[in-house]
Amino acid sequence: MAAWARAVRGLLLDVSGVLYDSGDGGGVPIAGSVEAVSRIKASGLKLRFCTNETQATREEFVKKLQGLGFDISVAEVTAPAPAACRILKERNLRPHLLVHDDLVPEFAGIDKTNPNCVVIGDAAENFTYANLNEAFRVLIGMEKPVLISLGRGRYYKETDGLKLDVGAYMKALEYACDIEAEVVGKPAKMFFESALAEMGVPPQQAIMIGDDIVNDVGGAQQCGMRALQVRTGKYRPCDESHPHVKPDAYVNNLAEAVDVILQQV
Amino acid sequence: MAAWARAVRGLLLDVSGVLYDSGDGGGVPIAGSVEAVSRIKASGLKLRFCTNETQATREEFVKKLQGLGFDISVAEVTAPAPAACRILKERNLRPHLLVHDDLVPEFAGIDKTNPNCVVIGDAAENFTYANLNEAFRVLIGMEKPVLISLGRGRYYKETDGLKLDVGAYMKALEYACDIEAEVVGKPAKMFFESALAEMGVPPQQAIMIGDDIVNDVGGAQQCGMRALQVRTGKYRPCDESHPHVKPDAYVNNLAEAVDVILQQV
Repeated sequence: MAAWARAVRGLLLDVSGVLYDSGDGGGVPIAGSVEAVSRIKASGLKLRFCTNETQATREEFVKKLQGLGFDISVAEVTAPAPAACRILKERNLRPHLLVHDDLVPEFAGIDKTNPNCVVIGDAAENFTYANLNEAFRVLIGMEKPVLISLGRGRYYKETDGLKLDVGAYMKALEYACDIEAEVVGKPAKMFFESALAEMGVPPQQAIMIGDDIVNDVGGAQQCGMRALQVRTGKYRPCDESHPHVKPDAYVNNLAEAVDVILQQV
Repeated sequence: MAAWARAVRGLLLDVSGVLYDSGDGGGVPIAGSVEAVSRIKASGLKLRFCTNETQATREEFVKKLQGLGFDISVAEVTAPAPAACRILKERNLRPHLLVHDDLVPEFAGIDKTNPNCVVIGDAAENFTYANLNEAFRVLIGMEKPVLISLGRGRYYKETDGLKLDVGAYMKALEYACDIEAEVVGKPAKMFFESALAEMGVPPQQAIMIGDDIVNDVGGAQQCGMRALQVRTGKYRPCDESHPHVKPDAYVNNLAEAVDVILQQV
């Protein structure tokens, strides 16, 4: 019996590095993950996909995952862009966007004239020297610069190698402007809490499964959830000696985690 | 009598934002600066140009300034790339370079095969998404990543606006790899000390004049020099309420500083 797997009613799954490895042509599923998602759904456990993905609208993102064979729908996905849109509306913020072209439609209902904040996501190829200078100039021109970052990931793995994530570019702008960004997405507590609320499961009965020791595991644990790190995606052996974060368990991959959890249910 | 100008034997001048504003076509001299440099030289004061410029070799940089009318020679310039080359040789480091194309010749005598460190300078248009990912992969692949940064400036002013400086990109790589860069150039103490040694003037008898409150003023003061901030270049009024650094005096521009100093000599 694995103690960490007891009394669970809901699972939160990170997507990139847990379900699939992203990359050109949409990426490839991680072995056993398609079946693992189906088994979770068949078990009656509550399930939520909790991603910092900001390279596409949720619609496009879900379509891609469906194409890889996953049983997933838009309504099951918690992602940073819609959370950011709620904040922008609440605070009358008009963003200058430094995001991936494919994410722009998520901000369709938002006034973007005469910007009074910058929203940065994983802009990938849009992280050009010119675009970074432009976002910097918008920020430095404000009396009190407001930078909203869709996640704070350091890097992620695509099929052709590791790529810098939004957090690195967030740090560049933070340093240049001497400010601190507001992070929407993992590991922000509010982001996990909204995913739990959408599932209707308290943190004590939920397990987060991710490949990111800080953003997935550390963030979820700070909300009172258990958290597993998978040894897929961006996992590196040195994560196991992380100075601050210790997962409730390591599993080789999602399929193995689901095996153990479903034995307890 | 200005107390800050007493008993001075040597001046260290920052270049960009003090002598000229850089930009397309080479930039433009700041009013009065060409004459101010000539007057310093005629006065018999020791003079050193102390720059974090890494967009060109010293030869090209000096040629550009001569073209703008300045009396300056390569032997009078203290710059980060030669200082970095000394460190690379001393420690048997073979760099992967993320620098401006025009700086590459400074590293001509350095072995760059099978890199065991990354050197980052103000790469400007070379700060592409692909190049940043590549430098990151080289670093993250090392057991103990070594990142040497030619300066840690936040931003600078060109004729077409503010640009992110090397410090911002240094921070991105530091964050992604969870490391701290070694900074060569201002505000590193060793850099100012080598400029003073080249002049043969002790810090108590030297004044640094710059537009950067942290890298010029703060760095020089930490070496025991006096330091002035000019209200040209990247100067912003809010610098005058900086929480940590207070210049010995503000001057509107280099010409005004030289007026005051030469009255005391």
